Amino acid sequence: MSYKKRTRDYGVIIGELPTGKQNLITDVDGVTVGQVTLDDGEIQTGVSAILPHQGNLFQEKVMGASHIINGFGKTIGTVQLDELGTIEAPIVLTNTLSVGTAASAVIDYTLQNNEEVGRTTGTVNPVAGECNDMVLNDIRKQSITKRHVLSAIKNASSHFEEGSVGAGRGMLCYSLKGGVGSSSRLIELPHGTYTLGVYAVSNFGTLKDLTINGRAVGRTLTSILKEKRESEKGSIMLIAATDLPLTERQLKRILKRSVVGLTRTGSIISNGSGDIVIGFSTAVRIPHEHPDSLLHFSCLHEEDMDLAFRAIGEASEEAVLNSLFTATHIIGRNQHDRPTLSALLEKYEINL
Amino acid sequence: MSYKKRTRDYGVIIGELPTGKQNLITDVDGVTVGQVTLDDGEIQTGVSAILPHQGNLFQEKVMGASHIINGFGKTIGTVQLDELGTIEAPIVLTNTLSVGTAASAVIDYTLQNNEEVGRTTGTVNPVAGECNDMVLNDIRKQSITKRHVLSAIKNASSHFEEGSVGAGRGMLCYSLKGGVGSSSRLIELPHGTYTLGVYAVSNFGTLKDLTINGRAVGRTLTSILKEKRESEKGSIMLIAATDLPLTERQLKRILKRSVVGLTRTGSIISNGSGDIVIGFSTAVRIPHEHPDSLLHFSCLHEEDMDLAFRAIGEASEEAVLNSLFTATHIIGRNQHDRPTLSALLEKYEINL
Amino acid sequence: MSYKKRTRDYGVIIGELPTGKQNLITDVDGVTVGQVTLDDGEIQTGVSAILPHQGNLFQEKVMGASHIINGFGKTIGTVQLDELGTIEAPIVLTNTLSVGTAASAVIDYTLQNNEEVGRTTGTVNPVAGECNDMVLNDIRKQSITKRHVLSAIKNASSHFEEGSVGAGRGMLCYSLKGGVGSSSRLIELPHGTYTLGVYAVSNFGTLKDLTINGRAVGRTLTSILKEKRESEKGSIMLIAATDLPLTERQLKRILKRSVVGLTRTGSIISNGSGDIVIGFSTAVRIPHEHPDSLLHFSCLHEEDMDLAFRAIGEASEEAVLNSLFTATHIIGRNQHDRPTLSALLEKYEINL
Amino acid sequence: MSYKKRTRDYGVIIGELPTGKQNLITDVDGVTVGQVTLDDGEIQTGVSAILPHQGNLFQEKVMGASHIINGFGKTIGTVQLDELGTIEAPIVLTNTLSVGTAASAVIDYTLQNNEEVGRTTGTVNPVAGECNDMVLNDIRKQSITKRHVLSAIKNASSHFEEGSVGAGRGMLCYSLKGGVGSSSRLIELPHGTYTLGVYAVSNFGTLKDLTINGRAVGRTLTSILKEKRESEKGSIMLIAATDLPLTERQLKRILKRSVVGLTRTGSIISNGSGDIVIGFSTAVRIPHEHPDSLLHFSCLHEEDMDLAFRAIGEASEEAVLNSLFTATHIIGRNQHDRPTLSALLEKYEINL
Repeated sequence: MSYKKRTRDYGVIIGELPTGKQNLITDVDGVTVGQVTLDDGEIQTGVSAILPHQGNLFQEKVMGASHIINGFGKTIGTVQLDELGTIEAPIVLTNTLSVGTAASAVIDYTLQNNEEVGRTTGTVNPVAGECNDMVLNDIRKQSITKRHVLSAIKNASSHFEEGSVGAGRGMLCYSLKGGVGSSSRLIELPHGTYTLGVYAVSNFGTLKDLTINGRAVGRTLTSILKEKRESEKGSIMLIAATDLPLTERQLKRILKRSVVGLTRTGSIISNGSGDIVIGFSTAVRIPHEHPDSLLHFSCLHEEDMDLAFRAIGEASEEAVLNSLFTATHIIGRNQHDRPTLSALLEKYEINL
Repeated sequence: MSYKKRTRDYGVIIGELPTGKQNLITDVDGVTVGQVTLDDGEIQTGVSAILPHQGNLFQEKVMGASHIINGFGKTIGTVQLDELGTIEAPIVLTNTLSVGTAASAVIDYTLQNNEEVGRTTGTVNPVAGECNDMVLNDIRKQSITKRHVLSAIKNASSHFEEGSVGAGRGMLCYSLKGGVGSSSRLIELPHGTYTLGVYAVSNFGTLKDLTINGRAVGRTLTSILKEKRESEKGSIMLIAATDLPLTERQLKRILKRSVVGLTRTGSIISNGSGDIVIGFSTAVRIPHEHPDSLLHFSCLHEEDMDLAFRAIGEASEEAVLNSLFTATHIIGRNQHDRPTLSALLEKYEINL
Repeated sequence: MSYKKRTRDYGVIIGELPTGKQNLITDVDGVTVGQVTLDDGEIQTGVSAILPHQGNLFQEKVMGASHIINGFGKTIGTVQLDELGTIEAPIVLTNTLSVGTAASAVIDYTLQNNEEVGRTTGTVNPVAGECNDMVLNDIRKQSITKRHVLSAIKNASSHFEEGSVGAGRGMLCYSLKGGVGSSSRLIELPHGTYTLGVYAVSNFGTLKDLTINGRAVGRTLTSILKEKRESEKGSIMLIAATDLPLTERQLKRILKRSVVGLTRTGSIISNGSGDIVIGFSTAVRIPHEHPDSLLHFSCLHEEDMDLAFRAIGEASEEAVLNSLFTATHIIGRNQHDRPTLSALLEKYEINL
Repeated sequence: MSYKKRTRDYGVIIGELPTGKQNLITDVDGVTVGQVTLDDGEIQTGVSAILPHQGNLFQEKVMGASHIINGFGKTIGTVQLDELGTIEAPIVLTNTLSVGTAASAVIDYTLQNNEEVGRTTGTVNPVAGECNDMVLNDIRKQSITKRHVLSAIKNASSHFEEGSVGAGRGMLCYSLKGGVGSSSRLIELPHGTYTLGVYAVSNFGTLKDLTINGRAVGRTLTSILKEKRESEKGSIMLIAATDLPLTERQLKRILKRSVVGLTRTGSIISNGSGDIVIGFSTAVRIPHEHPDSLLHFSCLHEEDMDLAFRAIGEASEEAVLNSLFTATHIIGRNQHDRPTLSALLEKYEINL
């Protein structure tokens, strides 16, 4: 993969907290991301998989939570996630009509790795999210197969590409080409330095609303392009990872602050946009097997939360912007396409 | 199908409200139920589909809501259901590991009937629930295919069988054979007579807790059978239908009262039991197409709600009991089986 | 106080778990209850205060949570309780129109004991609940003063009376005299024996629905008394205490199961009944002061939760019944009164 | 009252929608606001009352809802508001330690106007919110009396002042003087033009984060003032009014979007900030008395919601900014004060 210029390469610095080493979700130790991209004429779609750690997730769960910013979305798995507060399988993202397939594939993955599931122990809760890529992708074809999902899980790594790849392949954002973006922040507290990272699949917003670090770039572009108003459809999936020691309540509080980043890029959280956040902390592992003892964990004092709140706001904002800056041009279904932000900035000589 | 004795045939009258004509969820005008049963040695499972009306559900949605009594379950579709308050496709129930397949099948069904989905309009929100039938069914085989689901939708009718059929095929309840049960109640208000019906797939509880109309039948049976304590796993799915004119808030308030019936059969709402209620009102149809006008509704004055609360409690209790009374004996995976309630009552000459 | 016969004195044993030593909420180590009763002609009302421990609650908070079974109630303090998961002051219960006064008094109490509140640190979150005692009490008089509340807090003890006392003074339950009841259960787990207790102020239900351990006593009494149907108004406040080590999510899961006990006494969770549960765990103390370190906790493995679920269901059921059995006859506003359960059982020679 | 320059007077135009006539919450027909200000040395506090219409609110309720952005707050009345979806009394805002008094005063107000409350019908649900003004006000004195609250209700009018008045008297916002601000938007739909207005009491944020229409004014001021970082405490109360015909679910969806405006002024929704929204629609009146008939209402098609979402985001942002621009300098407890935004802009010649 060739290097793609990211937000900071344009001189745009979001917020005040330091980023992790790669400025990616995988700066959180143990987290990996796998992406499979389908690029075949009318088929422009893909799968992303986020793995909280490299062990057996079903046997050693991580603490998880969800937050629904706007529920016009088909994310699977939130009922149990909210009740039990655990992630026990890779989180998968794909296009809307393939979300059932994604869930089935995660079930397969878990069955393959855990012979006792469905025999001597219960079943697994697949968590799968989606955005609708129907403009660029022939979504009715439901081209994603279980094999694609399993492949994304298998190829997960601490390095991964942003832009028009994985689940972000066919996505649009602010009427431009959207896709995958990621960012991370370091949280320095007296008892340690922690990392929080966000992985975004961006597929929401109207051009006129696009805001880059406070600047109304969308309004400028709208007047240049004489773009008529498009209705605001589409969605955003945000996956947040951290190694902060937290209770589920604290994790959920953090997830809620992702909206700060979202709105600062210009979102009005429109009706048709399924804006959903799934998050986890890797600080403890919760054993599937029932021990004879209590579980022991640590958490932040509530007054330490503000840095984490700031971190997820900044990382969410920068992840969305990274998805826009790194998106590459593709031509999809019915020759549809959308300009990329980088091309427009260059063409109209807009400096940020 | 041969006639199976139901709760009332044993002289057990639950509550005080009159039942609908069939004492089934399909007493609510327009509602139909389809069931496909797989009975093949180690494969003892099935699918149930509930259709709120006979028109195009995507084009003419009904008001819907969900309530999570206990979220240890994998039900799909609640995120959007809670946000938008609409059901726009048949509700499907099946075994836990087939819930992704169920969602995919509902997507197929909607695509087949709506050419504009994924083209000129958005996508569809499949609602699919599940219970875990792994004791009697080889659930790891994931035997349910999209064809089974589509067949359940297609054969939906206002008449349907209870017992060891459809999604209830392999289910256990109170350590006995569980399955499908249904019941309905009439709600007489000054402005009209309304109907509320419940469809249950029962798969929860421990024998010692079984209570029939206040009577501790489970304790009696436990002492006769010298049954050791089994851990309480399994779940219950409840689908509630009504023609009451309601707001979504009111519908949700009604769904919450299904717990009254559940606990009166003996449930302690145990950890491992995903106890989930999906409900809808057929009183209005919400057009998918965006009109130029407002939508017009009616709803109950809040003081009229008590009869609806009583109705869902009674119907939920009786639906669970009907599932137990009508369950037929089956031998499943590894020769596992569970006694039926009717057989035990007869064998030990227990009168209710 | 003279001894009043409680549920078990009538030979009625609710559930299967052992009770704590006193079968009261105060069996949870450190918990105390204070009650002030106003008995003056038309004024028949009172205050109850529940203290989670005997130290400075503002400085050393306990983990807390709430659950709204039915929100037709005016309980104060749940917004912050749900967000932060802490109880930082005595919990106060009283009549509906005095709930503002109760909150003000808890603020006074906290100011008196914490000079820094409102100076160098923030404010306090008072938690106050209520039921409506307007039939027996001239509620419009708002007779409860801050002094009554402070007195209830001051006289809190590990021994306390049940029946027509404290916040339960003027309450009705199942059209009989209601009031204060309490009960507790022991939870034996491999890593220790824990206690869970419930304190109820009962003020809900219609006579015909009263059920005692499965027996339809209300129906019997209705036919004897030829009692016309009364509409179901009134509410129930349940306070649950435990020393179980839990996360806030787990505590909330436990609180939700109080509905099991409630419905088994006959409740249909009627529209006009504010059925609200506030609970806390004393297992850890959360310091108000911000330390430089993490907080350390223990919690149950989720599979250990079932015993806690069973415990709160049983204790809630028995607490409500205890309130009925121990209620004494009072004559209130406009010479209104309600029969006591104990008197009716004796008069009509009903054995349980 | 002398005219105070508002946001638009500085050439700052928030968003794209037209404002109502006064650009105040009272542009929604029938809505009035009353404010009482206490200005007496160490006592710098006040009360605000918002009345949804001029009739008897208890007899003719309006549809209401709440949304908790961050629950570190002591708002009273949300339990019943969320359950029943109605506002039945004036909404009152004041300082944190006076919230119990505010509730008691609203109870008094309702008793005075409704003889049957607490006699032949139930009680009233007071809704009262708060922010902590302890820096400028001697909050421990609890200077607000029921008389102040009743006076605010009584003097409510469709004209009212912004700035350091009413509940906003002692508030701080972004380390500057905060207070009361308001704004409104028109929503033009095919079936009519509707109005949505917001009333804010602003008391949150850190100077460095202050953003005015995308411009990082706070960072500029921080570097000029060499202001050290203050911890982010304080809260914001937002009251939203509209005449849009809605269901409670739709109203709640709209309230959730107030966060868009909040974050655009720079909020990171910090831990210590109780950010709470209460809203209502005046489109229907819900009778307290139980009629023999159904209630009839209208609501928006969901696709019409985006304009309402945009409106509340814009009005919330501008209401917060208006509170900052119109705030006047006051000296309070211990000679504490905070600069006003208008003074700083003038002094340092910052053009917006």
